[in-house]
Amino acid sequence: MTYCVGIKFDRGLAFMSDTRTNAGIDSISTFRKMFTWSKSGERVIVLMAAGNLATTQAVVSLLDERSKAPSERMPSLLETPSMFQTARVVGNLVKEVIANSVPVGQSQDAFGASFILGGQIKGSEPRLFMIYPEGNFIEAGSDTPFFQIGEAKYGKPILIRAYDPKMSFEEAAKLLMVSFDSTLKSNLSVGMPLDMLFYERDSFEIGFRKRITSDDPYFRTISDGWSNALRSAFGSLPDFTLS
Amino acid sequence: MTYCVGIKFDRGLAFMSDTRTNAGIDSISTFRKMFTWSKSGERVIVLMAAGNLATTQAVVSLLDERSKAPSERMPSLLETPSMFQTARVVGNLVKEVIANSVPVGQSQDAFGASFILGGQIKGSEPRLFMIYPEGNFIEAGSDTPFFQIGEAKYGKPILIRAYDPKMSFEEAAKLLMVSFDSTLKSNLSVGMPLDMLFYERDSFEIGFRKRITSDDPYFRTISDGWSNALRSAFGSLPDFTLS
Repeated sequence: MTYCVGIKFDRGLAFMSDTRTNAGIDSISTFRKMFTWSKSGERVIVLMAAGNLATTQAVVSLLDERSKAPSERMPSLLETPSMFQTARVVGNLVKEVIANSVPVGQSQDAFGASFILGGQIKGSEPRLFMIYPEGNFIEAGSDTPFFQIGEAKYGKPILIRAYDPKMSFEEAAKLLMVSFDSTLKSNLSVGMPLDMLFYERDSFEIGFRKRITSDDPYFRTISDGWSNALRSAFGSLPDFTLS
Repeated sequence: MTYCVGIKFDRGLAFMSDTRTNAGIDSISTFRKMFTWSKSGERVIVLMAAGNLATTQAVVSLLDERSKAPSERMPSLLETPSMFQTARVVGNLVKEVIANSVPVGQSQDAFGASFILGGQIKGSEPRLFMIYPEGNFIEAGSDTPFFQIGEAKYGKPILIRAYDPKMSFEEAAKLLMVSFDSTLKSNLSVGMPLDMLFYERDSFEIGFRKRITSDDPYFRTISDGWSNALRSAFGSLPDFTLS
């Protein structure tokens, strides 16, 4: 499993992904699930992947090769005219990789993968997409300002309740860490370290990027502090009256 | 979908279930999912069901008929010597009903159902079981003092963090409502009203039972209060430092 979140704020985009992959409970490894392509002053593209590791690695490798060899037939990720076209390139590639992997007559479920794609290309706004294994995609708007892929449920309630479009990246980091901490506490197949990245709108540079390890002091503060804060929040509500 | 929780406290057992069933998103109905059998001063048995409605209704109806006609071959639910034997009776019945429903050569997945069974029979402790569609079951202990069936993920983090075996039923009601509120806010297929029941150990009577409707003032207080409490808990944690 996996847990990745991409969020759109007024100030820009925030991304966080875990790094655990598993083929069964007894075969666990650490793989990066967050990938970036950028051209300074012109575009920043961030991609996060969940699902079959062979599929996601093939997609990322093909995107890399395409971004390195501009003479390829498909448009390079560094030359797409807009984020929408970038999402189409990734979506078509996902569909193609999955179709190539599935044995004839079998379901494609085991080979599926989902992606969160975000970034900004000069001339348009920062945009955030979720790309399905079928290759189609949806875009985040003000009603649904974040996407989650992988083990999304445990960490969703806090995102729904604490999200505010005006948040600073300092607060966004806290929000992401609380959401990940709830997930890490509930599902063994999501694991540290975490990759965090912030993109500030109109900067066209990767603003801040950090790998959060399990001994990161801030993460520890949040993890312990959130348990206590939750308990006191719970304690602050009135008890029920049995009657 | 469904959401049901059964929790073991020092003081006794607490149960809560929602009432929404759906066959597709456009076919929604309200059905009770919590059922009780009791013999005053001797036993209280509570059963909550999630899964295929035809399966769960058949199981409950058969249990009812068996408890009403003691001459049946299978032991009646009001005559089992222990909660463990009660769980076996229910488990065998679940397996039988599912086996009867599945067309030859098809998977039983669509006909599956899970149950939480709790209660106390004179001469032994209060006990809490989770019964699987296969008819086997597990029992709650001090390490895992609660079971959830149905849409369990959204409401689990608060159970993990705020549960305390020494809680009063007044606090238990609050815990259950917060857990249900998180689930209701995230999944449309879990819906009000909620059924709540408390069993006080060694009372051998159904202690407190209430149907919580969506306009219940306490539930409204908890639902609104929890959003605010979560936001202030979140606000009380230190922000991240981008460096």
